[in-house]
Amino acid sequence: MDAATQLPTVGMIGAGQLARMTHQAAIALGQSLKVLAGDPAESAAAVATATVLGDYRDLADLRAFAEGCTVVTFDHEHVPQDALHALAADGVDVQPRPEALLYAQDKQAMRTRLTELGLPQPRWAPVASLADVEAFGLPCVLKAATGGYDGKGVWMVDTPADAEPVLASGIRLIAEERMGLQRELAIQIARSPRGETAAYPVVETVQTGGICTEVIAPAPDLDDATAAEAKRIAETVATALGVCGMLAVELFQTAGGLFVNELAMRAHNSGHWTIEGAETSQFEQHLRAVLDYPLGSTATVAPCTVMANVLGGAPGGPRLDERLQHLLAEDPGAHVHLYGKAVRPGRKIGHVTVRGDDPGLLRRRALRAAHWLQEGE
Amino acid sequence: MDAATQLPTVGMIGAGQLARMTHQAAIALGQSLKVLAGDPAESAAAVATATVLGDYRDLADLRAFAEGCTVVTFDHEHVPQDALHALAADGVDVQPRPEALLYAQDKQAMRTRLTELGLPQPRWAPVASLADVEAFGLPCVLKAATGGYDGKGVWMVDTPADAEPVLASGIRLIAEERMGLQRELAIQIARSPRGETAAYPVVETVQTGGICTEVIAPAPDLDDATAAEAKRIAETVATALGVCGMLAVELFQTAGGLFVNELAMRAHNSGHWTIEGAETSQFEQHLRAVLDYPLGSTATVAPCTVMANVLGGAPGGPRLDERLQHLLAEDPGAHVHLYGKAVRPGRKIGHVTVRGDDPGLLRRRALRAAHWLQEGE
Repeated sequence: MDAATQLPTVGMIGAGQLARMTHQAAIALGQSLKVLAGDPAESAAAVATATVLGDYRDLADLRAFAEGCTVVTFDHEHVPQDALHALAADGVDVQPRPEALLYAQDKQAMRTRLTELGLPQPRWAPVASLADVEAFGLPCVLKAATGGYDGKGVWMVDTPADAEPVLASGIRLIAEERMGLQRELAIQIARSPRGETAAYPVVETVQTGGICTEVIAPAPDLDDATAAEAKRIAETVATALGVCGMLAVELFQTAGGLFVNELAMRAHNSGHWTIEGAETSQFEQHLRAVLDYPLGSTATVAPCTVMANVLGGAPGGPRLDERLQHLLAEDPGAHVHLYGKAVRPGRKIGHVTVRGDDPGLLRRRALRAAHWLQEGE
Repeated sequence: MDAATQLPTVGMIGAGQLARMTHQAAIALGQSLKVLAGDPAESAAAVATATVLGDYRDLADLRAFAEGCTVVTFDHEHVPQDALHALAADGVDVQPRPEALLYAQDKQAMRTRLTELGLPQPRWAPVASLADVEAFGLPCVLKAATGGYDGKGVWMVDTPADAEPVLASGIRLIAEERMGLQRELAIQIARSPRGETAAYPVVETVQTGGICTEVIAPAPDLDDATAAEAKRIAETVATALGVCGMLAVELFQTAGGLFVNELAMRAHNSGHWTIEGAETSQFEQHLRAVLDYPLGSTATVAPCTVMANVLGGAPGGPRLDERLQHLLAEDPGAHVHLYGKAVRPGRKIGHVTVRGDDPGLLRRRALRAAHWLQEGE
């Protein structure tokens, strides 16, 4: 609690674009986000005054950071469990709690828990040897149980020869069946310690090379029964796992219904559309949830909102500033979010959001805008 | 231009709530607003990394601040003209230019220029003595030519005895007729150095004790001819005065038409509704304009948006944090903006915005929300 403003201090471990956009939301709530960054040039560290430099794997750094925080939360799920438990034992209000966050850190633990809950998911098994993989059945997907993101830690395996180098890496793995998808969906839900939940509409996500490149909100042509099933899954996960803050449930839509793909317990790329497209952004909602404030309305602002990610383009071509001006001239209704990161090919450096009525038109606008920012005209 | 991000650096002189909200907009554009603050506890200084401490009246401080800025702009109009001209002579890109900003700093210069332009305004005259005031006619309004804000520097004068202490102060004064108002309106327009303009819809403003307490956007029941006249006035002022950035024109609506009350060349309280209520917020628009970026869409997002200011309440009662939670619980669609200021009675400490269809209902919601934040339940 800040004595002058009479308002709380939220500490966020990690200083990427999620923390950067959370700082914008914190400002509106009268706060200034406190971030733990590895480097002062990180996305959020560049814009937030209360930046502490340190290593999120180091308990001493975490303890120093937590000092004075009303609550400590995350922009990634890479803080080790033992450090989280130590902080909680110190009396730090860590949200989500380590016991819940585990299921966003460890895919094997997540799959095991979802099996217990009877939630629909791809057939899966832990695997440690080629014999395990062959017993599971090829082709399949191998996933690192921990540490993966944006397509990293995921291997499409057709043959034993494909599987061998992955197994030889020594990484703890699970195998999952490859499902015939109609499309990928996601649903976000916020949950606060008092048990209040607030779900956003189901969205369609488009992945390119394992990276989310496009989100359409709400998911076009989604039938009511499937939307209700997605919400039931999200509420079950949030409540049964004791989630606090934002939860994103990535889903496969198949001819046989919905299956849970991944979980994230933080603001998520599939929710960036909420900044302009919903009454309450996922970033403000996460702050409200971890502070046990009442949650905000998740109603949509427009019939359709589309977000496209901007990836760093090939070196050369016009400067980002020039590309930005071309885009702004061409589409005065485009909402640009740049993350203040140095441009590297394939790196998420920003996103663009457009609102309107026609999903097809909005997708063309959003993709065109992202393309211009990425590669120039 | 920041070498790592390839994006410009905007310097803002002043670190109040306008700079604070501009920092939020700068973050989306990939930037971090650089602010000149008198104190590290000021509203924007508390949330923006690139804060320089200094005195906006001191040329050496201004020169040091301007170093490395792509453009220098303002969250208030109190920087002395000679300092602005010196900066411009140094080659600093000051926007708006001192020659334009003068008309937002000096009401006598503004009235003189608007007279030349033939724009409708209250009858006025410079006054220096009781004889001048009596020649002008009582009752009237006396205004300090420079330095006034939020009702300060404005005196309602009925009798010679009312006028004497004001005249005795030695402040340079103008007298204006007191007009019979139907209501107060405001129009905001952005203008960039290349001459592009973008006007927002005309809004109704409600003043209490000289302080804007409520804004309804668009102004309810405004006929098309009056809206067009307001836009004509705003475009004439913006172009003829060479404004760059946001311009707010405060207007009196009377039985005899519109009359110009005040000008501001910056983001303005009458435009806070644009954060949620327009495609482009006034804060992003100001950044775009001073950078000579293409301007954003000024289209409204909802049929009606209402903003109510939160003023500091009497000491005692629940903490601001508790008041905030009551409000969030009661109105999940309320958009709260707190300025991170210590609470003092009558001080603007934040605002609340609601969107919807029914102006009457929205006004009740917004005023109730502001009242709760101000004084508790």
